Amino acid sequence: MNFSTLYKNTLLEDVVPFWEKHAIDYDNGGYFTCLDTKGNVYDTDKFIWLQGRQAWTFSMLYNKVEKNEKWLAIAKNGIDFLRKYGMNEKGDFYFSVTKEGKPLVQAYNIFSDCFAAMAFSQYAIASGNEEVKELAKKTYFNILSRIDNPKGKYEKNTDTRPLVGFSLPMILSNLVLELEAVLDADEVEKTIDYSIQQVMEVFLDKKSGLIFENVLPNGEHHDSFNGRLLNPGHGIEAMWFMIDIGVRKNDKALINKATQTILNILEYSWDEKYGGIYYFMDSKGHPPQQLEWDQKLWWVHLETLVALAKAYEQTQNPDILKWYHKVHDYAWSHFSDPENGEWFGYLNRQGEVLLNLKGGKWKGCFHVPRAMYQCWKAFEKIEAKKNN
Amino acid sequence: MNFSTLYKNTLLEDVVPFWEKHAIDYDNGGYFTCLDTKGNVYDTDKFIWLQGRQAWTFSMLYNKVEKNEKWLAIAKNGIDFLRKYGMNEKGDFYFSVTKEGKPLVQAYNIFSDCFAAMAFSQYAIASGNEEVKELAKKTYFNILSRIDNPKGKYEKNTDTRPLVGFSLPMILSNLVLELEAVLDADEVEKTIDYSIQQVMEVFLDKKSGLIFENVLPNGEHHDSFNGRLLNPGHGIEAMWFMIDIGVRKNDKALINKATQTILNILEYSWDEKYGGIYYFMDSKGHPPQQLEWDQKLWWVHLETLVALAKAYEQTQNPDILKWYHKVHDYAWSHFSDPENGEWFGYLNRQGEVLLNLKGGKWKGCFHVPRAMYQCWKAFEKIEAKKNN
Repeated sequence: MNFSTLYKNTLLEDVVPFWEKHAIDYDNGGYFTCLDTKGNVYDTDKFIWLQGRQAWTFSMLYNKVEKNEKWLAIAKNGIDFLRKYGMNEKGDFYFSVTKEGKPLVQAYNIFSDCFAAMAFSQYAIASGNEEVKELAKKTYFNILSRIDNPKGKYEKNTDTRPLVGFSLPMILSNLVLELEAVLDADEVEKTIDYSIQQVMEVFLDKKSGLIFENVLPNGEHHDSFNGRLLNPGHGIEAMWFMIDIGVRKNDKALINKATQTILNILEYSWDEKYGGIYYFMDSKGHPPQQLEWDQKLWWVHLETLVALAKAYEQTQNPDILKWYHKVHDYAWSHFSDPENGEWFGYLNRQGEVLLNLKGGKWKGCFHVPRAMYQCWKAFEKIEAKKNN
Repeated sequence: MNFSTLYKNTLLEDVVPFWEKHAIDYDNGGYFTCLDTKGNVYDTDKFIWLQGRQAWTFSMLYNKVEKNEKWLAIAKNGIDFLRKYGMNEKGDFYFSVTKEGKPLVQAYNIFSDCFAAMAFSQYAIASGNEEVKELAKKTYFNILSRIDNPKGKYEKNTDTRPLVGFSLPMILSNLVLELEAVLDADEVEKTIDYSIQQVMEVFLDKKSGLIFENVLPNGEHHDSFNGRLLNPGHGIEAMWFMIDIGVRKNDKALINKATQTILNILEYSWDEKYGGIYYFMDSKGHPPQQLEWDQKLWWVHLETLVALAKAYEQTQNPDILKWYHKVHDYAWSHFSDPENGEWFGYLNRQGEVLLNLKGGKWKGCFHVPRAMYQCWKAFEKIEAKKNN
């Protein structure tokens, strides 16, 4: 079986059916995401990141794979829940709510809003619903208005050490393309240029070629826990966002720089002893604060497969292909679970399953189906070129 | 070598010298706690929990082991730093500051205040300093005034699910004995009774015999991530606080109940495959949210040794002795580092060193020396009884 077929079949016959079967809360709306190995619900709390992400996934499948009315209905189930229970009176999105939609954790986390905006935008395209389209736009501008102080009163850091984080510029580079259908062209171009500059000039370190998680506003490094922190999966994921932008702008230099950065990060963060990519590292080799630093996470490996597939599609770089096979062999043999469906999320350093779950507080219906779709499409093009 | 000598020698010839040699910041005051295997400083941020804890440790050593002026001076170095830089204008203690004392993370964490109060009280006894004694008292009452909303504006949970946490009642039961010298007798008795009732009636589950980390105010359990959470080390540590209170009150029933609870928790949370006590568990066996759940932490094992030594001293229960030997063998063979001094803090499930540090954001000069002192004294009594 070629890779495009592997990814397509896994998406349509394994991953999507798993979430269709186990995750939909038809009584209350929204989705259950705390699913054990077999898909049984072990907790009913609803985390807004994951509500938005699943609504996005099913909208995207409807828009890009097949006009399947069941998928549209599943997307609507999440969109309606988000509109009804997801936000506070200011339009900021909660972090979590009960299964019935009562707020549990306040709107301290702006990524809830980012994933809601993505969901609204994809669903607006799928459904043609103008209200949802307006809500996507409103949520996007609300995110921009909070960008300098995303945590609001919940921010515990003082102004003493003004580090800025990579997550928000990184996600903006994806969000703006996701929202292209609802935003003015000027806004899209401006935000793309801003995010390229932030990701590739401010957070990408010229010397090491690595992406730092937190830097001073001018891009300088700070010798502190947060200032030394590397999150390899984050850096690699951002590189496929950059490749998408490079393709859109026909910017070969950007594509090549992103490709080289993927290689830099992989060489730095591959576990030579047990295989897999570390979750967190310290740029000076000091002990990180994150006790889970050596664990192997599903999304890190899936985003890496997407990044490598896209980089190879664009560059045919043989080093990228070598890394693709290495990461492919590790990821498919350790995370996937063809017997029960979906992928495991968390392995220990040695590669054994650490938590027997398919979904939880942070893992839902998102990275696996998105990566399956992206790799399917990238390999279709790679294989078509080879056959010509 | 008998156990009392092992603990005494390790305290005085290994652990205390390690912190004396590597941790004191004579330039800025306070202590460095981010120390690598050999004691080299790898980060200079100062975490207020650990500043208070080290000042407490050296004051306690001065008060209980030897009137060593060097120890008093080391304690003063931390006390002065805490008084000058540790608190905001309301008298609430920051979570962390720079090495020079500039605030980094706001006063969202009331345990900073608890350890500062403990340090002030011990140092007041050591030095006779009346101002510090007043500050201990003031800090204690400030903690009580914040007890219903300890995180203040930084609290992200809504009122939807009014779970209460074990940490605060647990620490109060130790804090109040620590502050006996500065508080009125009535206040001490009242708080002791409150903490016994909270720990042994509200958080100790009658059915399983385990301590739950979060319960509804009436002690009922809630089927949610926080409601199912067990922190075995926490529960066991609280049991030696209860035994201390039981001895003080000559309450045999309390001592026996605490002893039985230690056994219950150990039987539930011992890793039969690799040895050691899990860090976090879910009372229904579901995947916990804490990715570090299966790691083996120094403080969990040291607090267990203290609890078992005290329980054995009081009860001569043979099951306790069996467990003592089992935990002793695991802990001394996995955490201690006689070559470089101090104990490692974090092992993976398999028992290998996960972070090559002796101190960091959460590990300082506290659990190791306190446990060495407590076990030394308990075994002195156990051995004296045996020899009579």
